[in-house]
Amino acid sequence: MLAMIVLVSGRGSNLMSIQAAIEKGALDGRINAVISNKREAAALAFAKEKGLPAVWMNPKEEDGRMGYENRLFSEIEKIGSDCLVLAGYSFLLNWDVFRHYGKPILNIHPALLPAFPGMTAQRDALAYGVKYSGCTVHFVDGGMDSGPIIAQKPVPVMDLDDEERLSARILAEEHKLYPEVLTWLARGRIRRDGRIVRVLPDDAEEGGGRG
Amino acid sequence: MLAMIVLVSGRGSNLMSIQAAIEKGALDGRINAVISNKREAAALAFAKEKGLPAVWMNPKEEDGRMGYENRLFSEIEKIGSDCLVLAGYSFLLNWDVFRHYGKPILNIHPALLPAFPGMTAQRDALAYGVKYSGCTVHFVDGGMDSGPIIAQKPVPVMDLDDEERLSARILAEEHKLYPEVLTWLARGRIRRDGRIVRVLPDDAEEGGGRG
Repeated sequence: MLAMIVLVSGRGSNLMSIQAAIEKGALDGRINAVISNKREAAALAFAKEKGLPAVWMNPKEEDGRMGYENRLFSEIEKIGSDCLVLAGYSFLLNWDVFRHYGKPILNIHPALLPAFPGMTAQRDALAYGVKYSGCTVHFVDGGMDSGPIIAQKPVPVMDLDDEERLSARILAEEHKLYPEVLTWLARGRIRRDGRIVRVLPDDAEEGGGRG
Repeated sequence: MLAMIVLVSGRGSNLMSIQAAIEKGALDGRINAVISNKREAAALAFAKEKGLPAVWMNPKEEDGRMGYENRLFSEIEKIGSDCLVLAGYSFLLNWDVFRHYGKPILNIHPALLPAFPGMTAQRDALAYGVKYSGCTVHFVDGGMDSGPIIAQKPVPVMDLDDEERLSARILAEEHKLYPEVLTWLARGRIRRDGRIVRVLPDDAEEGGGRG
C-alpha cells in the first residue's frame, strides 16, 4: 500500500485520475493528504468530497519562501507518506529543504522533457512549432523539471491546435500515465541509477519483460 | 520534378533512401549532385554507382572556412537545384553565405528537436535518460539544428539500448520520413509561416485532410 501526499495548486485533474485508480483497485495506494498552496484550488474541494485530508498551506503567512517551505516540509513529515506526488503544483520545491525528505518525489510535466520545461510548456511547444509534444513523469530534483525521467508519452501536435486543445490532448495522456507510474512505484518496480530509471518486469505478468 | 543537391559526409544511408524513393516513383525528383566534404564518404561511392554527379569539396584546400563555404556555394549555384538536402552533412552551413541560396534547405536530425541538437544526439538522449527520442526534418537556418520543424517521428528508447542500437532504430524512421517530406516538397504541399510549418492536404487524395 503506497501512502501518498499529493501537492496541488489547481483543478487537480491528475489527483482525480490517481484517486480513480485507487478506487477501481488498479493502484494499491492511499492518499494521506492533499496539500495546496492555493486556497481556491478545486483539488481541495475534490479531496474533501472524497473524505481525504485537505490542507491549505498559505505561502503568505510566513516571512519569505523559506518559512513556507519549512512549514510545508514539517506538515508533510507530520502526516507521513511513502512518496510525494506533485500534481499541478505551481511552486518549485526548495531543494535545500526537500533533499531531506529521503523518499521519492514525483512530478508530471506536460511536455517531452528536456524540451519545454517550466510553466508554459504547451504554449512554448506551439510557438516552437514541434510536431510532437507529450508528457513526462520524473523524479524531482533541485532543478526546474530536470530530474530523472521515469516515463514519457508522445502526443501529436495538430495544425489547428491552440494551447487549450493541445493541453487537453496531453492531459488525457497524463491521466493514464501518472496512475500507471504510481502502480509501478507501489509494486517496487522502479529502479534508479543516477539519471537512468528502469522499470522492472511485473512479477504478476507471466514472463513479462520490458526493453 | 524536384531537383535536389544532397550534401553528405558519411555513409549516405539517407541519400540511399531518397534515391530509392525516386527509383520506385514515390518521389518525383532527381538528384543533380551529391557533394561531400569528406573524400572517403561512402555516399560518394554510392552516387557514382548510381551515375549521379559526385563531388568532393576539400575543406582544407582553401584558406579558412569562409573560402570553403564560398566555393561550396558557387558549386551549388553552378549545378543548380530547387533545394538543398543535408543528409548526414557534418558542417554547420555558414549562414552569411547560405542565406543567399533563396530556396529550401532541409536537414534531418536524429532527435526530437529542440531536444538534443548537435553531433551526439543519440548519446545525449541516452545519457539524459529519455524514454522517447526520434527524428526531425527541419528547414536549416543560421543555428545548430534550430530551424522550423517540418516533420517528426518519435522513437522509443529501450532499456538495453546503447548508442548503436538506438541510432539504428531512429535511422530506420529517418529513412521513411525524409523521402516522405521531400515528396511533400515536390508536390508544393509545404507552407512555412515564421517557425510554423504546415503540410497541405494532398490534392491526389480524395478529400484528404490533415489536422
